Amino acid sequence: MTTSVAPKALLFDVFGTVVDWRTSVARQVGDALGSSVDAYAFADRWRSLYQPAMEQVRSGVREFTRLDVLHLESLRTVLSEFDIDLPDSQVTDLNLAWHRLTPWPDSVPGITRLKSRFIVAPLSNGNIALLLDMAKNASIPWDAILGAEPVRAYKPTPDAYLRTADILGLRPDECMMVAAHNSDLAAAREYGFRSAFVCRPTEHGPEQTTDLVAESQWTANVGTITELAEVSGC
Amino acid sequence: MTTSVAPKALLFDVFGTVVDWRTSVARQVGDALGSSVDAYAFADRWRSLYQPAMEQVRSGVREFTRLDVLHLESLRTVLSEFDIDLPDSQVTDLNLAWHRLTPWPDSVPGITRLKSRFIVAPLSNGNIALLLDMAKNASIPWDAILGAEPVRAYKPTPDAYLRTADILGLRPDECMMVAAHNSDLAAAREYGFRSAFVCRPTEHGPEQTTDLVAESQWTANVGTITELAEVSGC
Repeated sequence: MTTSVAPKALLFDVFGTVVDWRTSVARQVGDALGSSVDAYAFADRWRSLYQPAMEQVRSGVREFTRLDVLHLESLRTVLSEFDIDLPDSQVTDLNLAWHRLTPWPDSVPGITRLKSRFIVAPLSNGNIALLLDMAKNASIPWDAILGAEPVRAYKPTPDAYLRTADILGLRPDECMMVAAHNSDLAAAREYGFRSAFVCRPTEHGPEQTTDLVAESQWTANVGTITELAEVSGC
Repeated sequence: MTTSVAPKALLFDVFGTVVDWRTSVARQVGDALGSSVDAYAFADRWRSLYQPAMEQVRSGVREFTRLDVLHLESLRTVLSEFDIDLPDSQVTDLNLAWHRLTPWPDSVPGITRLKSRFIVAPLSNGNIALLLDMAKNASIPWDAILGAEPVRAYKPTPDAYLRTADILGLRPDECMMVAAHNSDLAAAREYGFRSAFVCRPTEHGPEQTTDLVAESQWTANVGTITELAEVSGC
């Protein structure tokens, strides 16, 4: 890291940073809906409704609602757009695709190494059950499951970062946000966190155009989470 | 277990059930205050202010306040009762004694085995930072840190149990409360949880008079957490 004083907690964005949501969701969409559906197009459309759904909460139009519920509403919209009629039990099960996402190959080894020296926890917009099921499926050794649900605030609102630091009993500068998204890091830094950019150039598929490089002087700038462990001396 | 349908999550009381708070706090009180203070009497008096402090929150007199704050207020009271004048930084550090409690010898091996088959998490009145620091110090492999703080309700109010099940996306009967206290299990069962009594006959020292036996037909009744793993087939 480019700073000599180490943080106490590393707080990870999850979708895209720790797990490859697009490939994982597309695979499960293919399994559930068959080969006649463009599974990647379905996954991308489902994900495109993620920010607008959270925006209703962030803007105060809607009270805090956990991501499983927002995902389910979005899924029903996409199924309807794709003209797919699915029994309710299968809709509910497909919605759990987000609980079964596969980590990038370096994520679990990297987080395991970092855990020896830092508190490691998600600071994700995913809800607790989603992140817990994902961690249990994929053996991600979090110290705690933090994020939007315990603080009832979605990133990038200040409460999402500041209340998480407060829960940990830490000052913001004792926390480092680890994310593949420059916008997440920009918000975290604005509220006093350190920042580590992990480049994930295929999160959105082979033709990704965003977040291909660090767009600012973040505290650290790495290609993988194992590299973050390396530069942190873990 | 005496039931044929297994729960999905085992939710543990922590103070007394997983860790030996009395010996751990007394040892740290002795280290901080010296041998002229009766460390066990100090620890017992500190703990005696625990229920009254939470009762202010449970009764609605006071808004939800995390346990670290209640512990600190109680510590100042006890220091004053013992006529001890301590610098602020040492008071703050001594308050963290509750973050550094030692597990009973069977706790970590037992929880590690149970984790292979169940979600394992604390459902404690301790706050997240307290439970997280304790877990990291003592290598307790929780899947998540749950309890009073995420649900903003102290046991034994119904919200403490029911909101925890809701966070996990589980029905109450898919959750099992594991505790050394009959009153905790009685509340959990009232709200639909399964119940496992772990006998901890020296939580309050060699002359303990309470919770020496299971006072009801709990779902399971064991002497250690490793025994709970054994009867659960882990």
